[in-house]
Amino acid sequence: MWKEENNQLTRTFEFDDFVNAFGFMAQVAILAEKHAHHPEWSNVYNKVTINLTTHDAGSTVTEKDRQLAAAIDKLVD
Amino acid sequence: MWKEENNQLTRTFEFDDFVNAFGFMAQVAILAEKHAHHPEWSNVYNKVTINLTTHDAGSTVTEKDRQLAAAIDKLVD
Amino acid sequence: MWKEENNQLTRTFEFDDFVNAFGFMAQVAILAEKHAHHPEWSNVYNKVTINLTTHDAGSTVTEKDRQLAAAIDKLVD
Amino acid sequence: MWKEENNQLTRTFEFDDFVNAFGFMAQVAILAEKHAHHPEWSNVYNKVTINLTTHDAGSTVTEKDRQLAAAIDKLVD
Repeated sequence: MWKEENNQLTRTFEFDDFVNAFGFMAQVAILAEKHAHHPEWSNVYNKVTINLTTHDAGSTVTEKDRQLAAAIDKLVD
Repeated sequence: MWKEENNQLTRTFEFDDFVNAFGFMAQVAILAEKHAHHPEWSNVYNKVTINLTTHDAGSTVTEKDRQLAAAIDKLVD
Repeated sequence: MWKEENNQLTRTFEFDDFVNAFGFMAQVAILAEKHAHHPEWSNVYNKVTINLTTHDAGSTVTEKDRQLAAAIDKLVD
Repeated sequence: MWKEENNQLTRTFEFDDFVNAFGFMAQVAILAEKHAHHPEWSNVYNKVTINLTTHDAGSTVTEKDRQLAAAIDKLVD
């Protein structure tokens, strides 16, 4: 579900409405801080797009990105 | 699922873990402010207990409580 | 503080860290749903950028955008 | 500011309104999960009461409680 391109992992999540989208964002925020790895992410109403890359590794996709992506996936799958 | 006793509606919600419980709390917070009606609620790890009563009506259960309860139920059912 | 260009209001907010930035996002989320008007917004670590436009008015800046912007400003000023 | 009694640390935080109180709660939630230590906490409108104890240590106050309390204090002081 995550696409790897331009040296980042990207996935867009779609929910019923804004309230559900933001509940997901609150969960992702907790996971991100716990992983000490933060996404570039955006939201419009029921859609949340998350981009993951590792700046400390020259902005490439690393194991840190894959681990956070996997943790996020567990929230919705 | 909601019990009415002591002039309030009460329901306890249980989740897999804290992250899921707090995602739900973020959703409930948005609904509460939208309804201009706020719960007395508590959380311990994966459990969230919500109490609803209408202080402006002498702390009894009113239609405002039932409407917020119904909106909350839609999040989980 | 908000710039109006490309038919939207835009402001970037900067915080000490991710935790503070996300606390602000939770507040904005509540206000947005209360106003029934939702931003296009993004976050990277301690920065939150909010774009406001009214799609129902042909994606121009309307009073709805100005009111939500004013409510958001009250959170931080 | 935290009182230690009944084998727990307790502090009540008061904010201007519900939106500000919940912004704080979102921050506390992130810190709690990061510390792998979760509060018993409750909210009514603009008030948030947090109780900290360490169940794994026989429900007494330990260094884990003091560290989370200190992290929470940094959010508001």
